[in-house]
Amino acid sequence: MQHLTAWSCENLDKIPVAVIGATGAVGQRFIQLLENHPWFSVEVLAASGRSAGHRYKDAANWKLSEQMPSDIGEKKVQDIDLITFSDNNIEIIFSALPSDAATKVESDLASKGFCVFSNASAHRMDQDVPLLIADINPQHLELVAGRKKAQKGFIVTNPNCSVTGLATGLKPLHEAFGIKSVVVTTYQAISGAGYPGVPSMDITDNVVPYIPNEEEKVEEECQKILGTLTDSGVILSSFSVIASCARVPVRDGHLESVCVALESNGTLDEVKQAFSQYKGLNNKTPTSPLRPIIVTEDESRPQPLFDLYNGEPERARGMAVTVGRIKKVQDKLRFYLLVHNTIRGAAGCSIMNAELAKMKGII
Amino acid sequence: MQHLTAWSCENLDKIPVAVIGATGAVGQRFIQLLENHPWFSVEVLAASGRSAGHRYKDAANWKLSEQMPSDIGEKKVQDIDLITFSDNNIEIIFSALPSDAATKVESDLASKGFCVFSNASAHRMDQDVPLLIADINPQHLELVAGRKKAQKGFIVTNPNCSVTGLATGLKPLHEAFGIKSVVVTTYQAISGAGYPGVPSMDITDNVVPYIPNEEEKVEEECQKILGTLTDSGVILSSFSVIASCARVPVRDGHLESVCVALESNGTLDEVKQAFSQYKGLNNKTPTSPLRPIIVTEDESRPQPLFDLYNGEPERARGMAVTVGRIKKVQDKLRFYLLVHNTIRGAAGCSIMNAELAKMKGII
Amino acid sequence: MQHLTAWSCENLDKIPVAVIGATGAVGQRFIQLLENHPWFSVEVLAASGRSAGHRYKDAANWKLSEQMPSDIGEKKVQDIDLITFSDNNIEIIFSALPSDAATKVESDLASKGFCVFSNASAHRMDQDVPLLIADINPQHLELVAGRKKAQKGFIVTNPNCSVTGLATGLKPLHEAFGIKSVVVTTYQAISGAGYPGVPSMDITDNVVPYIPNEEEKVEEECQKILGTLTDSGVILSSFSVIASCARVPVRDGHLESVCVALESNGTLDEVKQAFSQYKGLNNKTPTSPLRPIIVTEDESRPQPLFDLYNGEPERARGMAVTVGRIKKVQDKLRFYLLVHNTIRGAAGCSIMNAELAKMKGII
Amino acid sequence: MQHLTAWSCENLDKIPVAVIGATGAVGQRFIQLLENHPWFSVEVLAASGRSAGHRYKDAANWKLSEQMPSDIGEKKVQDIDLITFSDNNIEIIFSALPSDAATKVESDLASKGFCVFSNASAHRMDQDVPLLIADINPQHLELVAGRKKAQKGFIVTNPNCSVTGLATGLKPLHEAFGIKSVVVTTYQAISGAGYPGVPSMDITDNVVPYIPNEEEKVEEECQKILGTLTDSGVILSSFSVIASCARVPVRDGHLESVCVALESNGTLDEVKQAFSQYKGLNNKTPTSPLRPIIVTEDESRPQPLFDLYNGEPERARGMAVTVGRIKKVQDKLRFYLLVHNTIRGAAGCSIMNAELAKMKGII
Repeated sequence: MQHLTAWSCENLDKIPVAVIGATGAVGQRFIQLLENHPWFSVEVLAASGRSAGHRYKDAANWKLSEQMPSDIGEKKVQDIDLITFSDNNIEIIFSALPSDAATKVESDLASKGFCVFSNASAHRMDQDVPLLIADINPQHLELVAGRKKAQKGFIVTNPNCSVTGLATGLKPLHEAFGIKSVVVTTYQAISGAGYPGVPSMDITDNVVPYIPNEEEKVEEECQKILGTLTDSGVILSSFSVIASCARVPVRDGHLESVCVALESNGTLDEVKQAFSQYKGLNNKTPTSPLRPIIVTEDESRPQPLFDLYNGEPERARGMAVTVGRIKKVQDKLRFYLLVHNTIRGAAGCSIMNAELAKMKGII
Repeated sequence: MQHLTAWSCENLDKIPVAVIGATGAVGQRFIQLLENHPWFSVEVLAASGRSAGHRYKDAANWKLSEQMPSDIGEKKVQDIDLITFSDNNIEIIFSALPSDAATKVESDLASKGFCVFSNASAHRMDQDVPLLIADINPQHLELVAGRKKAQKGFIVTNPNCSVTGLATGLKPLHEAFGIKSVVVTTYQAISGAGYPGVPSMDITDNVVPYIPNEEEKVEEECQKILGTLTDSGVILSSFSVIASCARVPVRDGHLESVCVALESNGTLDEVKQAFSQYKGLNNKTPTSPLRPIIVTEDESRPQPLFDLYNGEPERARGMAVTVGRIKKVQDKLRFYLLVHNTIRGAAGCSIMNAELAKMKGII
Repeated sequence: MQHLTAWSCENLDKIPVAVIGATGAVGQRFIQLLENHPWFSVEVLAASGRSAGHRYKDAANWKLSEQMPSDIGEKKVQDIDLITFSDNNIEIIFSALPSDAATKVESDLASKGFCVFSNASAHRMDQDVPLLIADINPQHLELVAGRKKAQKGFIVTNPNCSVTGLATGLKPLHEAFGIKSVVVTTYQAISGAGYPGVPSMDITDNVVPYIPNEEEKVEEECQKILGTLTDSGVILSSFSVIASCARVPVRDGHLESVCVALESNGTLDEVKQAFSQYKGLNNKTPTSPLRPIIVTEDESRPQPLFDLYNGEPERARGMAVTVGRIKKVQDKLRFYLLVHNTIRGAAGCSIMNAELAKMKGII
Repeated sequence: MQHLTAWSCENLDKIPVAVIGATGAVGQRFIQLLENHPWFSVEVLAASGRSAGHRYKDAANWKLSEQMPSDIGEKKVQDIDLITFSDNNIEIIFSALPSDAATKVESDLASKGFCVFSNASAHRMDQDVPLLIADINPQHLELVAGRKKAQKGFIVTNPNCSVTGLATGLKPLHEAFGIKSVVVTTYQAISGAGYPGVPSMDITDNVVPYIPNEEEKVEEECQKILGTLTDSGVILSSFSVIASCARVPVRDGHLESVCVALESNGTLDEVKQAFSQYKGLNNKTPTSPLRPIIVTEDESRPQPLFDLYNGEPERARGMAVTVGRIKKVQDKLRFYLLVHNTIRGAAGCSIMNAELAKMKGII
């Protein structure tokens, strides 16, 4: 990802960070997105015991089309269980752990005082953990404010990849019109399942209308993101979400067909304006797009092949959601949206979250 | 397609039929499905002027994995405009014409007294034309009863490929519980666009969330099929349908995610029973499945690759719709259904319709 | 697979057989091809310890588009290590074991007196083991003649999937003209790697020009199959083979581009005749095709999608190799050939081999 | 494509060029590669009569994942037949015409005095037309030297996409060891057929072992590129080439399996050195790679998905050929090579050729 020159600074001044679960697909994406990051510098790579002790380039089966940063390849992978503050003065950890491993590891790291920004689903619905998309619900970061300075540490999670796109698309509607109910059907890319992930024999020339736990995540995470922060935590929003999730033979990009009943109906033009003028609640940090939503008027778009990197070419590549084919049918609003599932939908979102925390002085 | 032995008879006794638009993708499917048909025998092949005069095997670019019937390959293709009753005593015509050509040609043929069973969309919504799925709304055939004997001729259409699956899946719910509204999102196979159809550059590693006119067809045809036959024609049913249609890189089979609000809510078990016990209103003709709906309990099915030919292996291959992942969420019913888009969803449906007309003495 | 009616007989008379490695991809193919086999009846299913004790339908993740035979699904999977003659009087074992497991297990079974027909590569190049394609080098079966009656048992292997196609295509050329050298490049289907096999992230929209050990197998197995049986074993044929093997995003069917230098040059017509008139050295058993090689004159064929099941539709489906695009360039002969990698190239070949052994009285 | 900053200059100083056949797939690639080109500026877009008069963004169905340059979209498309020198002082024309149209149009333009750099096959084998890869056979440009100044105009062609890769790979072997014969088999991407090009029904889950005229082009063009320039034109090199060409379901990148008999055998290390140390005969212009050949030691590479953009990231993206899996078998050398078929294999090559002509003072 390229960043605005204004943020450029010498490596010496950057904040050292760790990536845990560094060898897997999401870990690789964290590393790729953090290459040349103006604020953060990856200094520690950690993974499960098996990879520990090896150079990263030997431990990881690099699967991104972008090349592995050469300095990263030479770094030695640490054992997750042995991370301490004395390792390169790390305080910030990006977690790409699988969910089952994350439950304990992330809690332990937080309790030691680390600030964990995680893509894992393990703690997303925990009361004291923000489920955060920095430009959609930045105020939820308040849940962890003050905890770093008290050396308590904390976990901040990004949502499920499909939810990140959906919540982004729903946010301006929620603000402008209110939402009564949502029916969403997804076309999800194979990269969402990591590596080795989906066997080719399962998905070549096929669609698989089942992704374990995915529909449940979509149905519950949306309400937390669009919920209201109170003194006693986040109160879930009350609209209903019905999700149908399927895997399609596409490498990158989750496409979603969304049908929404609004509280107060806007005209088609008002809806399009709500989408296209939405500025987001954080567009000042390196990884945040100037506008989180791009509206396309092309009747055959958005398409994964052409629209994953819409937005400003110079920054925040893969961080904008594209919305198209907006129409009103009966009393409902129908549109398609497209999200880059491993950038805005995963590693990119956690990086943007950490940037917001930095800007707010929380880390 | 294999048929029950009981229907087997000598070719001499079969009813001669014509296929028009015979060289295209749907025309090929008509020919393949009518090979060894116990009642009908393809005697006339017709196409537009360009193909006329050539042997079928030279005129058609055969694209089915099943082999071209060898006797068909040697037949000479006729010019559609020159078809008369004296051609092999043809009265029944299966039409695989593109919609724009069908508008005039089918009307002309009907007015000459031919019985036209058509896959084209041109006349589907005409007042005096049944939009027929023989095992779902057989009573609509009454619209044309008596017209053949009066030498008036008629057109009977099969629905759009996506609609055929959807209307089949909705029928038992409509009967048992009543339907308030439907939100459907499709994953449609490339074979639905014919040949050459979708360019590979458009769909390889991509999803295209747009198929011209498809959503409109889905939204209106359903109501006619599930509408009520009265003396003054078919009164459309009144539930709303919102459709989102996309092309996916799959060769055969339209998968559909369906979310239904029912008039009177059944339990999950009652819904499953309504599906699985639905016998259809015509299961006595060679191409009609014993049960139009197969219910799968496998949590990852139906899938195009594995479930297109569910049902009895001996007959009506590709004529059953498979329903799975049935769940109740909030006050809605959600399921996935799969239909073979070029068999039940096109040529197979028109053949079943003609069989019903034959059994009812209408042809 | 359908077989000629003449062979039909009651189940009671059939020879009971076992399939070991029954739960994997090749094991599934053995079971599917042996359904309704006129001579053999699958009575014992065995697999590694983990699957043992479970019903087959619970232990196997069935991945064929053909349905699992219902009686097989209910059978209990045995532990391979515990197979004895007293299990349903089994003497014949079809092995679908992975190569590393096969090394010891197959040797042990043979030494106990079982007749093992194996798809594993472990023993293919062993001196006393025929590397057999029943209609190409049936005489090699002599290597094990007499061993069953002496209760010694034996192993007969089928070749690697690519080699089975290649050796079949080369055989008539070898006979008619002699072969000096072969350069072969393959386009191999993902089903060749079993299940889960190739990750979709590796092969979607990609070609992988590497299959572990495949080129070595192609280069050595051909010479054994086309080698000469002598009293001291098979003397390898002496022509050179250079193989380049790649995986392509295709479900079934290995396509091969073959360039051959012949000892004595025939005309193009003579070469085509040699292919098309080749009858094979065994076309009398249920799974052997009437002709092992089908020649296509279509300039764009053979193609995996259309030509895998060429040949007589009534029997031996998937057992013929299709050859096309035959041309002479400079002093070389160039053609493409296509083989069904999991039928003729694996399970189907071993079944045909066992049929030959039965017909010859060796089992 | 990004270029070295050193070449950057103001638009005012750039040489105006035209792209003809501008709306098609190769035309789009010319336009994309010429965006921000340091020497050339696209001022004229021309196409056949049908597109003429429309704005480019209305006339072209843009199919690249890179966005259409916004200034280009607003330009009006001219009729090819009406191009004159007075149009923006154009002297240089990049031709992306289909071959049948190119025959006459390119000859006419050259005879009017234009300098035509063409991707079309029409004139490639003409005696007075260089078949040029600027870093492989730059001396062939002499064929047209002096013709511009005499206002004669000329045509310079780039080779067929497969040949560009092959000739690049063969060049260092030809120089270091001499070549006796070549057997090449290709895995060609669908983008090579343009748009709409290959129907998805033909290539999804399939391989098509036939591309019209492709094998003939590969077999003859190589010899011209590696031929010797004499006073009486290019004398073709004498080694034999046997080509087998197939289309695979991959979007971009032609992979080729190459088997070479060398005149004087080098060791495996010497061969690798010849490849990796080959500097090319032109690496000084903006679009020429520092090294035309990248050698990979990864046993599973090169792969279209990962290796199309190997080389220096800052310049000449898609202009290097990657070679891997080099092995010596018997007396032959075998390797795989990968070329970006629409960049080095088409538009990028002609741009590099024009740059060389500029540097040499020929234009």
